[in-house]
Amino acid sequence: VSAHTVGILGGMGPAAGADFVRLFVAACAEVLRARGLPVVDQAFPMHWLVQAPVPDRTAALQDPNAAQPLAPMIHALGALRSQGVGTVAIACNTAHAWHPQLRAAHPGLRILHAMEEVAETLQAAGTPVVGLLATEGTYRTGVYQEALSRRGILCAVPDSAGRDLLMDGIYQGVKAGNLPKATMLFERVARALVAKHRLSTVILGCTEIPLALSPQALPGVTLLDAANLLARRLAACAYGSPGPA
Amino acid sequence: VSAHTVGILGGMGPAAGADFVRLFVAACAEVLRARGLPVVDQAFPMHWLVQAPVPDRTAALQDPNAAQPLAPMIHALGALRSQGVGTVAIACNTAHAWHPQLRAAHPGLRILHAMEEVAETLQAAGTPVVGLLATEGTYRTGVYQEALSRRGILCAVPDSAGRDLLMDGIYQGVKAGNLPKATMLFERVARALVAKHRLSTVILGCTEIPLALSPQALPGVTLLDAANLLARRLAACAYGSPGPA
Repeated sequence: VSAHTVGILGGMGPAAGADFVRLFVAACAEVLRARGLPVVDQAFPMHWLVQAPVPDRTAALQDPNAAQPLAPMIHALGALRSQGVGTVAIACNTAHAWHPQLRAAHPGLRILHAMEEVAETLQAAGTPVVGLLATEGTYRTGVYQEALSRRGILCAVPDSAGRDLLMDGIYQGVKAGNLPKATMLFERVARALVAKHRLSTVILGCTEIPLALSPQALPGVTLLDAANLLARRLAACAYGSPGPA
Repeated sequence: VSAHTVGILGGMGPAAGADFVRLFVAACAEVLRARGLPVVDQAFPMHWLVQAPVPDRTAALQDPNAAQPLAPMIHALGALRSQGVGTVAIACNTAHAWHPQLRAAHPGLRILHAMEEVAETLQAAGTPVVGLLATEGTYRTGVYQEALSRRGILCAVPDSAGRDLLMDGIYQGVKAGNLPKATMLFERVARALVAKHRLSTVILGCTEIPLALSPQALPGVTLLDAANLLARRLAACAYGSPGPA
């Protein structure tokens, strides 16, 4: 099996980065099975995960005087490149706010784009309207809204109180290791959003959210896990062209 | 929070490597909580995972003419070192057969030793006899038996038929993505071993086994997950001395 070395920029947060590797490995196994190849250790692509303790992304987007994550992210991508990595996924939706700068800093690297993956998938499915669960930073930068509106897809977001609850679930829940708290908050916000806009599809637009929100919590609603879509694209790249695109 | 850069040598198999990162992240969060520090992304150590598709370890131990994993493992450890990693855990029990050679190749690196972690834990608990679930390669090299017998701990292992079932569970089960098959085989072998020797403690001595064998399957029996102990040691090293030991 011919495969290219790929990389994952994680640590944002670390539990989500670990889960991203799990999703990537599962996606590689799917590629192998789809090709009728044996799923053995040796058939997997060489892959690297770096979990870098970079400054908080939402805080950086809200306050230009706060510690900024761009420089350490550029550095970590350079380290991945030095290991022969040709394609990278960033295991943090909010960090995609700096995608243009990361791309400019590393023109030789193919840096996947979570929002483009999600928007393409929704377009292919013909979904006209979708809900978005994400961090305050992701909402503010409009990275999802931009990718969706370019394809004519409406994006429903929680009100300010709902966003605050999501941030609590992400920071005091998942990142702090309190999953039951996160589950309670995510379910509450997701159900209210779905009911208000009669949604049939919701984007899990923060890598921490799927760690505490299961599809069983919202029967009849399709939960689109951005991390899972990104992991599948990374697997396709590993077994496909070496990049950059 | 001051922390050192640490590394994980994985890919053996990749699902076990991903799970090892999850265990390591959870162990770091435990260290932070024990010290009364906030569990935030920025408090985690910089850590690297390399998942290298190295040749099969058991096959290499059974047949000296088979492809050998030593050279690619040495290479991967060198790559981790070049990223500033001072302490490494190997997320594969069987690969510990080459621990002396890896150590000799990288004297500047602290390479943790899964069997020593497990044997020390059992000695501290005063356990006189323990069962071992592992690969054929791990049984053959006697890495666990050696570490245990040095501490006067008896080690019970499955018979040849039981070992074959474990290998089926690891290779056609976990590595191939068929977890129900693995669970069925692991439970069968573990229950027979526990009953035969009236064991109260069993070592999960292959990083793939805990992915498909839960403590609920053997009530009253302590399952000692070597990967989890190793991940906790790596976390202690990340927040402790920079290594090598």
